[in-house]
Amino acid sequence: MTIKRRKVSVIGSGFTGATTALNVAQQELADVVLVDIPDKEGPTQGKALDMLESTPVVGADVNVTGTSDYKDTEGSDVVVITAGIPRKPGMSRDDLVNTNAGIMKSVTEQIVKYSPDTYIIVLTNPADAMTYAVYQASGLPKNRVIGQSGVLDTARFRAFIAQELSMSVEDVQGFVLGGHGDDMVPLIRYSSVGGVPLMDLLSQDRIDKIIERTRKGGGEIVSLLGDGSAYYAPAAALTQMVESIVKDKKRILPTIAYLEGEYGYNDLYVGVPTVLGGDGVERVIELNLTEEEKQDLSTSVDSVKNVMKLLK
Amino acid sequence: MTIKRRKVSVIGSGFTGATTALNVAQQELADVVLVDIPDKEGPTQGKALDMLESTPVVGADVNVTGTSDYKDTEGSDVVVITAGIPRKPGMSRDDLVNTNAGIMKSVTEQIVKYSPDTYIIVLTNPADAMTYAVYQASGLPKNRVIGQSGVLDTARFRAFIAQELSMSVEDVQGFVLGGHGDDMVPLIRYSSVGGVPLMDLLSQDRIDKIIERTRKGGGEIVSLLGDGSAYYAPAAALTQMVESIVKDKKRILPTIAYLEGEYGYNDLYVGVPTVLGGDGVERVIELNLTEEEKQDLSTSVDSVKNVMKLLK
Amino acid sequence: MTIKRRKVSVIGSGFTGATTALNVAQQELADVVLVDIPDKEGPTQGKALDMLESTPVVGADVNVTGTSDYKDTEGSDVVVITAGIPRKPGMSRDDLVNTNAGIMKSVTEQIVKYSPDTYIIVLTNPADAMTYAVYQASGLPKNRVIGQSGVLDTARFRAFIAQELSMSVEDVQGFVLGGHGDDMVPLIRYSSVGGVPLMDLLSQDRIDKIIERTRKGGGEIVSLLGDGSAYYAPAAALTQMVESIVKDKKRILPTIAYLEGEYGYNDLYVGVPTVLGGDGVERVIELNLTEEEKQDLSTSVDSVKNVMKLLK
Amino acid sequence: MTIKRRKVSVIGSGFTGATTALNVAQQELADVVLVDIPDKEGPTQGKALDMLESTPVVGADVNVTGTSDYKDTEGSDVVVITAGIPRKPGMSRDDLVNTNAGIMKSVTEQIVKYSPDTYIIVLTNPADAMTYAVYQASGLPKNRVIGQSGVLDTARFRAFIAQELSMSVEDVQGFVLGGHGDDMVPLIRYSSVGGVPLMDLLSQDRIDKIIERTRKGGGEIVSLLGDGSAYYAPAAALTQMVESIVKDKKRILPTIAYLEGEYGYNDLYVGVPTVLGGDGVERVIELNLTEEEKQDLSTSVDSVKNVMKLLK
Repeated sequence: MTIKRRKVSVIGSGFTGATTALNVAQQELADVVLVDIPDKEGPTQGKALDMLESTPVVGADVNVTGTSDYKDTEGSDVVVITAGIPRKPGMSRDDLVNTNAGIMKSVTEQIVKYSPDTYIIVLTNPADAMTYAVYQASGLPKNRVIGQSGVLDTARFRAFIAQELSMSVEDVQGFVLGGHGDDMVPLIRYSSVGGVPLMDLLSQDRIDKIIERTRKGGGEIVSLLGDGSAYYAPAAALTQMVESIVKDKKRILPTIAYLEGEYGYNDLYVGVPTVLGGDGVERVIELNLTEEEKQDLSTSVDSVKNVMKLLK
Repeated sequence: MTIKRRKVSVIGSGFTGATTALNVAQQELADVVLVDIPDKEGPTQGKALDMLESTPVVGADVNVTGTSDYKDTEGSDVVVITAGIPRKPGMSRDDLVNTNAGIMKSVTEQIVKYSPDTYIIVLTNPADAMTYAVYQASGLPKNRVIGQSGVLDTARFRAFIAQELSMSVEDVQGFVLGGHGDDMVPLIRYSSVGGVPLMDLLSQDRIDKIIERTRKGGGEIVSLLGDGSAYYAPAAALTQMVESIVKDKKRILPTIAYLEGEYGYNDLYVGVPTVLGGDGVERVIELNLTEEEKQDLSTSVDSVKNVMKLLK
Repeated sequence: MTIKRRKVSVIGSGFTGATTALNVAQQELADVVLVDIPDKEGPTQGKALDMLESTPVVGADVNVTGTSDYKDTEGSDVVVITAGIPRKPGMSRDDLVNTNAGIMKSVTEQIVKYSPDTYIIVLTNPADAMTYAVYQASGLPKNRVIGQSGVLDTARFRAFIAQELSMSVEDVQGFVLGGHGDDMVPLIRYSSVGGVPLMDLLSQDRIDKIIERTRKGGGEIVSLLGDGSAYYAPAAALTQMVESIVKDKKRILPTIAYLEGEYGYNDLYVGVPTVLGGDGVERVIELNLTEEEKQDLSTSVDSVKNVMKLLK
Repeated sequence: MTIKRRKVSVIGSGFTGATTALNVAQQELADVVLVDIPDKEGPTQGKALDMLESTPVVGADVNVTGTSDYKDTEGSDVVVITAGIPRKPGMSRDDLVNTNAGIMKSVTEQIVKYSPDTYIIVLTNPADAMTYAVYQASGLPKNRVIGQSGVLDTARFRAFIAQELSMSVEDVQGFVLGGHGDDMVPLIRYSSVGGVPLMDLLSQDRIDKIIERTRKGGGEIVSLLGDGSAYYAPAAALTQMVESIVKDKKRILPTIAYLEGEYGYNDLYVGVPTVLGGDGVERVIELNLTEEEKQDLSTSVDSVKNVMKLLK
């Protein structure tokens, strides 16, 4: 039995997908296959080749391939889905959800055709509903389909806190439940810096302002860029999730996971703290929530359900 | 103005000192000077040369030098003191303290002679008193003299918790105040895993057993080794403190810091949470302690004071 | 004296500039300031903020700032210039050279105003002439102004060789002299894999094909992307040059350096092997060239001179 | 199918074995099992526990176990053998060889009992003969049994060259054939710095002195240490070989490999350049040797054969 490199495929060669592929390659986590639709095959191959040409400089021994043929993803350990359309002006939420759900379905069928026991990480918005769509289309067990939102949200929160306090980003612990953005349920009593409760370091007023900024974090980048949305921090978040699986790190990360009774919910994907390791979501961690927190989570879950109702 | 590598000197070429030097060199944090007494000059040079010969393999561009001449430490950014004798059977605590205090004094005079504005990290036991001795002998401002104990204590605590829960060591946050070992004041309400309070994940009984094991952590290694004491984890702890200073990371680390009013104490070195950055101890973080925690800290402080009384 | 983080400014927030800034930040080499013209201030700030929000995930304690105000670059240890226009269809070479030379001049004046003893790395094309323009505008000594071309060229060459042989990219040593692209002078007798001469591993025919592909490497990416040119490998090359300076690694890298008699040339910037360390180009390495190689270099130098003649 | 961490066992918990285990753990390459004889079970467990307690500080999610029971090594991807006795004063070469060959045999039988398709790396001296002994005892195919000597020899050579030239260790390429130490065949025409032939950078006289120092490199450390021999650089060498296999890097490394016709030799383990990847020695690289080099290799091979004759 020969030792083989891990293999990670990234679906969607836009900025987030490409940057994720770059991170995975340059951190030497796995061989990388970057996939996009046939129309984008040239640019996808161009980006992959450009990444490959960077590997000698960083000393990473991995292959990077660009393709529109899912056959090249065969035997992937992990597949990251970044494909999908952004919400455009004038587009109804219904249209967005159903267009992306359609993309999830067709992409997932291709993925599992060639990698029937892979782990899938979903970025596409709205992530809770899209993760559910992938789960259904894949036929995979629940621990193998995971959505991203909380790692990014907490990354923003942690960056803002670290700046405010002039302390290391490594030591800021943030914590969110529920949905992304406005639906995010920040749990301040679980947030700390080097173990010191945030409330001992910052006034409630400052904390509130930072939470508000975190909630609007995606929009802040969109409005600065003028054209397009964030991709460096989202790609870092996806890469960390990939790493935690391929290296079986068992990180405690807030991910969009399938609930079967946890927190009193069933048959639903929503953001909760999880253990992410060599078997995907190895455990959903249940917190002792206060009544208020339960209420906030319930509101966030309702919001997820409302989106899911749009799915045809 | 030319960009120069950082320079770190390590005093004492025993296992902990040598392993710290190795870590600093292989992580390419700084050029390293390993110093010991003239009688040990050969072995000190041998270890340094052996380390230097490992640098091509790990790709670290640093010099590593072994010496007994403090002139070679000139211009050190950080100096780590691991010199000193361990407590031997039949040796009184008084003897131990005063022998090591004498070593601290002579070593420190040599250090500051050649590096008058360096940062000094002290490992030598009993660390609270020895850090104080170095502070006095050095004439340096308080932020430039720092003792190690809490990083090691929490490392052990974190390792045990991670093993117990099958979760990533990266996500376990431990927290101690006060002295080392038996005098350690663990603050469980500040300990968490990925932000989840430890008490939500483990029973009080299991936590108590892990605290007890942490307290006795040094002894556990001593009794397994049969001859000698721990050095891999202590060296890792020292290296992290060095890194936080030379890279100005501003990590929140539990260190032995000088108190001037914080927690109600004065003119005393004791273990507290600090911000460790490019200016050494940039801040002592004051926690809102419960009455019981204050009492425990007070006991720990008394213990430090008792050791300091032995200093002649 | 406090230990301060290194500071690196990147001029130009396009793909290459932004990716370089990302690499420098995520590798925790330095605080990063990303600079672009006032018209692009929003997007520049957006990219910088997005990068900053990725630092908690990768554990990098650095600031990342986007700006159009050169005052923010004050005290930079290294400045990387990626600003400039690409050659557009219908644009004469003369126009390209003079437009970019004008940009180099105004950018450099701003740089040295705020960082009078910095090191400047130039990417802008045509890189030989642009590096010369920066050198003249800066008033800095020759070792402080360096151009990039050879690290990228050899990276491509190394990637192709590693793929062809199924061997580690880390062990492929490539070597070029002279200009970029078509003017590149590959020195195959100095190329090896793990020390084994390339000629012992591949037929001359295969080597020739790989050289040809390397020469056209930039164009290959351009034609695949359809719109735009390579940035991942160029950014990796720039980052390695930055690292070699800020960590004083003294890497042997092919850079565009100022010649004062070396190889028989004077007052000229051209690609040669150099030692790149804490004092910039610490040494130009002179090779014992064959007559044929001297002739190739001469042709390449002529080409550089022809471009420089266009400079008004 | 779950993604599992790699597993590496290290036989022999002396300085080299323990430092190798530490490196593998702290670089997060694999879970580590450190094995020694029952008499040393306590210290072996102590060292492993000390290493484990360092993992939270370095952020490495791996288990480290100390044991005397080979059952714990079950399913190892790679096993490193450092066990064996050093040559003591008054001990005949015959005694050394046969004592260590006996150890190799019993150790190997235990290894393959629990890991029947592992890769084995042998450090024990004399390494050529001991690697052969392991090969025979294991019943494994030739590519799965590999000896270490050249990585260490070239590491020393590279370190000396880098120091002499004030250039990066990363860019020095050394090259040896044949045996260890006095039997080493340095190939200077394959040695270079950043691709520049060593002979263009240093006089033959200086090169000769550095070769001589490299040959005596082990002895230099022994005489400085006074008691014991080198372990930091040997452990780094072993770790690099482990990494190249578990990450399938396909590094070109000088290893002790089994020859079947290469270089005109058969049924013999001797130092040659190899490709080391996920299938162990994936390829032996044959060089076009000069007559003189062939003669030197022949002398080195004779020396290996003489040692092998001692094997009973």
